[in-house]
Amino acid sequence: MINFSFSLPTKVVFGKDVQQNVGSEVKAYGGSKVLLHYGGSSAQKSGLLDQVCQSLKKEGIGYVELGGVVPNPRLGLVYQGIDLCKKENVDFILAIGGGSVIDSAKAIALAIANDCDPWDLFDRLVDAKDCLPIGVILTLAASGSETSKSSIITNEDGWMKRGYANNLMRPKFALMNPELTYSLPMKQTIYGIIDIMMHTMERYFTPVKNVDLIDAMSEGLLKTVIKSGKVVVEDPENYDARAELMWAGSLSHNDLLETGRIGDYAVHQLEHELGGMFDVDHAAGLSAIWASWARYVYKADTGRFAQYAVNVWNCDMNFQNPEKTALEGIAKTEEFYASLGAPISLKALLEEKGIQDITEAQMREMAQKSTYGNKRKIGNFVVLSEDDIVNIYKAAWER
Amino acid sequence: MINFSFSLPTKVVFGKDVQQNVGSEVKAYGGSKVLLHYGGSSAQKSGLLDQVCQSLKKEGIGYVELGGVVPNPRLGLVYQGIDLCKKENVDFILAIGGGSVIDSAKAIALAIANDCDPWDLFDRLVDAKDCLPIGVILTLAASGSETSKSSIITNEDGWMKRGYANNLMRPKFALMNPELTYSLPMKQTIYGIIDIMMHTMERYFTPVKNVDLIDAMSEGLLKTVIKSGKVVVEDPENYDARAELMWAGSLSHNDLLETGRIGDYAVHQLEHELGGMFDVDHAAGLSAIWASWARYVYKADTGRFAQYAVNVWNCDMNFQNPEKTALEGIAKTEEFYASLGAPISLKALLEEKGIQDITEAQMREMAQKSTYGNKRKIGNFVVLSEDDIVNIYKAAWER
Repeated sequence: MINFSFSLPTKVVFGKDVQQNVGSEVKAYGGSKVLLHYGGSSAQKSGLLDQVCQSLKKEGIGYVELGGVVPNPRLGLVYQGIDLCKKENVDFILAIGGGSVIDSAKAIALAIANDCDPWDLFDRLVDAKDCLPIGVILTLAASGSETSKSSIITNEDGWMKRGYANNLMRPKFALMNPELTYSLPMKQTIYGIIDIMMHTMERYFTPVKNVDLIDAMSEGLLKTVIKSGKVVVEDPENYDARAELMWAGSLSHNDLLETGRIGDYAVHQLEHELGGMFDVDHAAGLSAIWASWARYVYKADTGRFAQYAVNVWNCDMNFQNPEKTALEGIAKTEEFYASLGAPISLKALLEEKGIQDITEAQMREMAQKSTYGNKRKIGNFVVLSEDDIVNIYKAAWER
Repeated sequence: MINFSFSLPTKVVFGKDVQQNVGSEVKAYGGSKVLLHYGGSSAQKSGLLDQVCQSLKKEGIGYVELGGVVPNPRLGLVYQGIDLCKKENVDFILAIGGGSVIDSAKAIALAIANDCDPWDLFDRLVDAKDCLPIGVILTLAASGSETSKSSIITNEDGWMKRGYANNLMRPKFALMNPELTYSLPMKQTIYGIIDIMMHTMERYFTPVKNVDLIDAMSEGLLKTVIKSGKVVVEDPENYDARAELMWAGSLSHNDLLETGRIGDYAVHQLEHELGGMFDVDHAAGLSAIWASWARYVYKADTGRFAQYAVNVWNCDMNFQNPEKTALEGIAKTEEFYASLGAPISLKALLEEKGIQDITEAQMREMAQKSTYGNKRKIGNFVVLSEDDIVNIYKAAWER
């Protein structure tokens, strides 16, 4: 176990109807003028936005609205949000949605409090010293951004997708009602399940040894997500399964499951480039790459992959040949993703976007972008070079 | 899963040498004059107290000292601490030790900030509105008080042991270096292991259904503690096993493993009365009672006890007769406690204190005290009456 620092200041309020007290929560954190930040029209149609406005009005809190956040949230809308907040003297950002909305809200809140160009944070040119308070009403169990310290934004100028992390941007509160996820399109539910699993697995596949407690907790989380995921696919209004997924989403990405270890994150980096270049769904991109990454790197620690196979997928341990067990765990993961209808090859991923081919030059470009030309370290379980990344993209294409 | 609210604001700084930065941590939370609160002479002998004083001096922070905290920390010393802090204008309480020291520090911090008699808080006559900031240097993996919202104090007048819980008293920081636990007497290490397990099990045995995620994480924690516990008994300077125990101690008692459920706590209540009347070690008392409680209540949910047996103790499920599996899990727990050298009967527990007998009148008195004469609810997995409690004490005696 390695040294770590950890805290989880976000107040999670979890359960039925919790969104109805949003006004008093905003007030408790000093909000007097709120930006309501959201995505498409579902928050309006479902009546959620009306509920929020009523609750804010009841507390005498003013608000302005900015919808239109899309998956792979755009820097352009972040700039719009900053302008609107400055013009309207907004002092609290309320994200109503899933990870994209929350990430966009974080970028706005950071840029205003630090009076900087938000992209300078994501491009590592400046570091944040402060952040406007953020609250969340979560409508999607997936990203874990509701209690996390990170945000990922896509810059349309060059289609670069970059993450920034800082404890300052952890939301003040997250109101989490599993019922709000009942009406999600099934595809979003499925991609949420994969996203939660991948956040856990990025941390699980670590080069650090002797991390039993968090291993066991991560394995328990993964098993629960697999079990609950199967339930909600059949029965989308199953409260208990939706609740398991929602809480698992937060716990998978708030650093609890990274305490005492370092995560890998190579698959996320490779996906970020796919997201930037082809605007693919985040979780679909992860699903399309993961098994190819795993088969490329598992020999660095066959034992860990065998442990994953046995403890998460209930595979029998092949004591004579642990490698077979390791590979079985990878195959089981891929089969599960496929059973949910997610792409498990780059070809299938891009076909969904109407793209028939990808050139090696494009793969190389993504590899170069992600490594900043071999200057940035990609991966910790195995450190990947540009060539490694191209090889993984190729393997993922050819599956 | 039931509705819940949860946050974990304590900054955990974990690993080798982390205690050396205590001065800057205190400063970050505004401390200018500190009460160093500790137990016996081990903090002095080990050089830890000197390290702390050096670090505080380096930051220009003043301090006064109050040692002498004993297991089942006493109200009398809390009063002394309050007087000293008021006289010396102390604005920060630093607990150097384990759960007893931290609980005593919490009682002092609460009483000063609320200008009240601390026992009025523990006796539920007043509620806290504020708390002096508290920091912790942890030297014992056991109580979880370093990130918890609760404190337990014993009033020498009547020998009553009472707990009080309020989020305000969560420490600002907890510096957790597993190496500081190397030199503990083995008995304290063993009682710590039992304490951690019991904190987890009090929450695990819940009447709430469909709590899979936290079940799985709790089972993972218990398995890790059992495994690491066996290691440290053989090899007290095994860093990784000490680290697992230390982090498990915090996670078992900071409410994470209670999210979405209610805990039981009957065994803790029954032990509190034993602690109050006979001043027994907390964990020894838990060890002496738990299996008798479990055998008294398991039929309320045989399935949950069977799940515990299978998922924590690797028992084979007896599909024809789950009750046998349930009882096997209880027996395995008891065997493990006995293997560590802990008492598994009330008779053995009291013999350690030189007490040869206990009357039914004494059992009845403890039962009455704990239920406030059947006015206070004891237990949630099964609600226990005064008669039930006497029956459990009797069963624990006769084992």
